[in-house]
Amino acid sequence: MQLPKHVTLKEVGPRDGLQNEKVHIATEDKIQLVNLLSQSGLNYIEVTSFVHPKWIPQLADAVEVLQAIKREKDITYAALVPNMRGLERALQAGIDEASIFMSASESHNQKNINKTILETLPILKEVVIGAKAANKHVRGYISTVIGCPYEGYIHPEKVLQVTDKLLEMGVDEISLGDTIGVGVPTQVEYLLEELLKRYPVEKFAMHFHDTRGTALANITKSLEMGITKFDSSLGGLGGCPYAKGATGNVATEDLLYLLDGMGIATGVNMEKLLDAVRFIEQKLGKDVASKQMAIVRNEGSANVT
Amino acid sequence: MQLPKHVTLKEVGPRDGLQNEKVHIATEDKIQLVNLLSQSGLNYIEVTSFVHPKWIPQLADAVEVLQAIKREKDITYAALVPNMRGLERALQAGIDEASIFMSASESHNQKNINKTILETLPILKEVVIGAKAANKHVRGYISTVIGCPYEGYIHPEKVLQVTDKLLEMGVDEISLGDTIGVGVPTQVEYLLEELLKRYPVEKFAMHFHDTRGTALANITKSLEMGITKFDSSLGGLGGCPYAKGATGNVATEDLLYLLDGMGIATGVNMEKLLDAVRFIEQKLGKDVASKQMAIVRNEGSANVT
Repeated sequence: MQLPKHVTLKEVGPRDGLQNEKVHIATEDKIQLVNLLSQSGLNYIEVTSFVHPKWIPQLADAVEVLQAIKREKDITYAALVPNMRGLERALQAGIDEASIFMSASESHNQKNINKTILETLPILKEVVIGAKAANKHVRGYISTVIGCPYEGYIHPEKVLQVTDKLLEMGVDEISLGDTIGVGVPTQVEYLLEELLKRYPVEKFAMHFHDTRGTALANITKSLEMGITKFDSSLGGLGGCPYAKGATGNVATEDLLYLLDGMGIATGVNMEKLLDAVRFIEQKLGKDVASKQMAIVRNEGSANVT
Repeated sequence: MQLPKHVTLKEVGPRDGLQNEKVHIATEDKIQLVNLLSQSGLNYIEVTSFVHPKWIPQLADAVEVLQAIKREKDITYAALVPNMRGLERALQAGIDEASIFMSASESHNQKNINKTILETLPILKEVVIGAKAANKHVRGYISTVIGCPYEGYIHPEKVLQVTDKLLEMGVDEISLGDTIGVGVPTQVEYLLEELLKRYPVEKFAMHFHDTRGTALANITKSLEMGITKFDSSLGGLGGCPYAKGATGNVATEDLLYLLDGMGIATGVNMEKLLDAVRFIEQKLGKDVASKQMAIVRNEGSANVT
């Protein structure tokens, strides 16, 4: 197997995880969570979202969280930004990077953003121009890149069309999301083959949900295709409220187990990462669904001897 | 990706699953379970075990179950056989195939069988000779082929040594078990590369546990190496009582989702398979851990539209 030597984990738990949890998490606990993650060796954390609190009340404290976290150098602290109003607040709060988002499938885009894809693009373009003017990197999430809960299988051509638009705008990196976790490695390979005909592999990160247990298989195939950036969420927290059947993101600790086992460096320390998972488990008052935490609960340690 | 067009699923749930469950399952329910599995399109079912009931009291009704199930043609009904006494009972009960078992690691073999590897081999040889005299196929399980709970990583050389012995005896097929579910695709690839230098791929089946979420990734890599036979257990039931941290086998329905998605034929019907899973869930009085059943519980259907 040809595999990259180093991979960057992009931790989306504080945003993509917590926005989907019903339990109220206090602002100070969110700050503590990000601080624990900063200690684990991660160098990218999506901290919060500037989507209007009417839609995501769980993250209404975005400014407070971003302003109070203890920042470590070499860590990018990002936030989700839906529009210019969100960007203004995000810049004031001191984000390092802005994440914009849309879907490859028309109907998921409409359910998630309440706009058609064509209506969404100029709004995102404004954000990209604004973020670039402030010297910030911009990440573009594309959801439903393999399957859509309303349209079924999504052909790579649709993903390419949206990718073209986002990269033309000046987006620095595209995160390709299997939002409902339906993908299998053959589909991942086909999608990436098509995208990599047109763009360099560095432009892409993969964002898998483990709804059907295929996340690590899809990640392995992505690694073989040269991908070196993966989104994940501590404890497997998260999902998409507008995508029926979307359970969690792939758990950061399960992905780390895979990468550690294959000798791929991430810089992330498992025990320190699990400290953050244990912390949020306690605050959520429930066991998270990751395999690593199930092992820890059974044995008291993540290590197998 | 080069993938096989057809794969055989070897259902081990009635034996490997139920031997590890604490809830008492009535003999008539075990019979009903096997009958439901027979209706799903599977063509291999490991029905029970002839290990002495002192060790596996859950399967003390092996003879009754084997004699009462409704046999379908084209399905192989197998049972685990530890020694000549077990083989005699198994043959009387009408097995189609005998499965023998040992470990690649010395200490796991001793914990599991209470004998050294050297002491185990002549006992297995007797069984193979006896089964062959009765015109029965013999399957050989090798446990801990990647990791051992007592010895850590197991080098392919140790697996080769045991494989050599079993194939010399006349064993028809080897099932390579990642008993504690520690393996990652690079290790699977290395193991199979070494084995396939010496033996044809048809000699091997893979038996993965999903303890760390890597089972479908390991299966995908095995498929790419040419493997066409996989063990799995409905609902992900089972594990190994002597292997700390071994949770379940990979769930048959999750494996089927992967194979269906990649266009690999198995002959197994998902809805009929899930009928069997629902039946055993009810008898066990608990939710099984498979992803497909979690989706069914959330949505009422395994299909994503």
